[in-house]
Amino acid sequence: MKIIDPYGSELPEDYHKLINDFGLEPFTTKLPRPNKLMRRGVVFASRGLEPVIKAIKQKKKFYVLSGIMPTSEKIHFGNRSVVENIKYFQDRGGKAFVLVADLEAAAARGIDLKTAKKNALEFHIPAYIALGLNPRKTTFYFQSENTKVTNLAYEFSKKVTHNEFRAIYGSTDPGKIMSALTQVADILYPQLEEPMPGVIPVGIDQDPHIRLARDLVKRTRQKYGFFSPAGFYHKYTPSLDGSLKMSKSRPESLLELPEDAREACRKIRKALSGGRKTLAEHRKLGAIVENDMAFELLKQHLIEDDKKLNKIYRDYKTGKMLTKEVKDIACKEITKFMSKLEKGMQRARKLIPKLKFVR
Amino acid sequence: MKIIDPYGSELPEDYHKLINDFGLEPFTTKLPRPNKLMRRGVVFASRGLEPVIKAIKQKKKFYVLSGIMPTSEKIHFGNRSVVENIKYFQDRGGKAFVLVADLEAAAARGIDLKTAKKNALEFHIPAYIALGLNPRKTTFYFQSENTKVTNLAYEFSKKVTHNEFRAIYGSTDPGKIMSALTQVADILYPQLEEPMPGVIPVGIDQDPHIRLARDLVKRTRQKYGFFSPAGFYHKYTPSLDGSLKMSKSRPESLLELPEDAREACRKIRKALSGGRKTLAEHRKLGAIVENDMAFELLKQHLIEDDKKLNKIYRDYKTGKMLTKEVKDIACKEITKFMSKLEKGMQRARKLIPKLKFVR
Repeated sequence: MKIIDPYGSELPEDYHKLINDFGLEPFTTKLPRPNKLMRRGVVFASRGLEPVIKAIKQKKKFYVLSGIMPTSEKIHFGNRSVVENIKYFQDRGGKAFVLVADLEAAAARGIDLKTAKKNALEFHIPAYIALGLNPRKTTFYFQSENTKVTNLAYEFSKKVTHNEFRAIYGSTDPGKIMSALTQVADILYPQLEEPMPGVIPVGIDQDPHIRLARDLVKRTRQKYGFFSPAGFYHKYTPSLDGSLKMSKSRPESLLELPEDAREACRKIRKALSGGRKTLAEHRKLGAIVENDMAFELLKQHLIEDDKKLNKIYRDYKTGKMLTKEVKDIACKEITKFMSKLEKGMQRARKLIPKLKFVR
Repeated sequence: MKIIDPYGSELPEDYHKLINDFGLEPFTTKLPRPNKLMRRGVVFASRGLEPVIKAIKQKKKFYVLSGIMPTSEKIHFGNRSVVENIKYFQDRGGKAFVLVADLEAAAARGIDLKTAKKNALEFHIPAYIALGLNPRKTTFYFQSENTKVTNLAYEFSKKVTHNEFRAIYGSTDPGKIMSALTQVADILYPQLEEPMPGVIPVGIDQDPHIRLARDLVKRTRQKYGFFSPAGFYHKYTPSLDGSLKMSKSRPESLLELPEDAREACRKIRKALSGGRKTLAEHRKLGAIVENDMAFELLKQHLIEDDKKLNKIYRDYKTGKMLTKEVKDIACKEITKFMSKLEKGMQRARKLIPKLKFVR
């Protein structure tokens, strides 16, 4: 199945550059029944995915892993894409692992371990469950409590030289080294019990960890026989002002999860649109849909049904639909989304005491 | 009290250089009732010892900490000096901590964690107890099981830059960084519960860890309020061939613990001596005691009683005693020493199941 991305027309230049610079594989899914992120080109690249595809098709063991950074009681739509992809692989037989990067939160962001734990239990894990993660089929752990992970990180430290590290990360500060080695240990930890293919859905900024993990798999082949983990990369959720990434330094560019629905609507109404300068021009030329951040939200996050999205695209592109109408839809959908998230989190919080955390 | 070192006459050039290069304090003990290593100049330097001296005199809390490298079932006389100093501080009210550096043994020496644990329980800890460590007053732990230590190491990683690390260690390989940060976490771990002065008896090659620990104490003052740990340095046990250090690459230079007493005697008889070329010359000029490795063994390790050692020194120095006689004494003493060690270890092994290991 080919990727259908009728909306973005072309992968933006930035992503082409990423694929070339990092030697990624452009995503042309051979995965069965792809989710909307895959169908719509939001998942834009992967690295070494073949063993996972094979495991799914042959119904063999594989895993999917991601991490939570338990800093504040807010996440964003990028996390939602990660959860959507975890859920995809989980639904196709993958063992899911979600780790809480509390060591990193403590060391790099000054959140003490106790607060990090509280944040994760009361907010992040319920949010991930509300966004679709199946808690009964997921293994959770805290980095600070998992000696198998920290022991593996220690072991890996002897297998990488200063120069190799600099080539991958561009920095050799001890803090950077420690967090990278720990994340690589996280990535490979599920294979300690039994080697199997694995896939790590991440933002592209996490790719260096995937590369280092793949190098370390080769260097520890004799001892562990790990499979090389696959990277699975989704685009950034575009900023409401049209720039590549949302940023906390520009609050108007950013939608957080959860966020008050009225506040979200207000920001959407102010967001960069693909509408023309005058009504007449709009009716005549149609919208520049690629520039429309409200449509981008609908496409990436808010509308599941391809037919429904296609209709909006066509109507907007041909000038039949106005910017205000697209924003009305986005506002209505985000209001539903936030309400569903809130209720889902309330339900999920009741499950927390029953979860098992490995140590 | 001044150091009495009538035997070595002068601190060898190498040690003067170490003191200057590293900015150590030459050891002039103000400690009460110094042990033989302190009285005889085997302890040759310290760093920041004042708070510990004060704690002993004022009967306040302090700690003494050292580590075991559980690689093979052999230790050497350098470990014996460490134990002797731990015991000294332990007997003066210090809380003793002995950690098993199993993570380092696994990562750097390829000893898996299970084997490292077995080695430590069956050999190293019994040996340390046989050499004088009080097991009832000692806290033991394994690095691989102590999440407080690994968590602290992670936190410290963000407080040191690449350049600072290179200035202290001369290397910034990830493996070096990981082991250094973990050792610094070991050094400060006893203060997590309650800040107090501490002293770390080590070989001089471990001084960089003391320096980094002292830097990190300053940088985490706000959060932890740790006391700066003191370094406490003993000389190398001279090699039997007269070079600075014993080495496994020159088996004849090396006495291990335990070692077959007859084999040890054989090596001592072949060791570099301070005797003159002819009997007549020896009687006339006396021995060059500083060059005599058998005497050095008596001084550093085998004879407790100062008067007895002084007599041997005088008789040998004046030519009254011959090299063979000094070696006879060394052989007799080392035979007693090895026998006592063996019996002590047999007794100590029975205590192991009762020891508590913190996690």
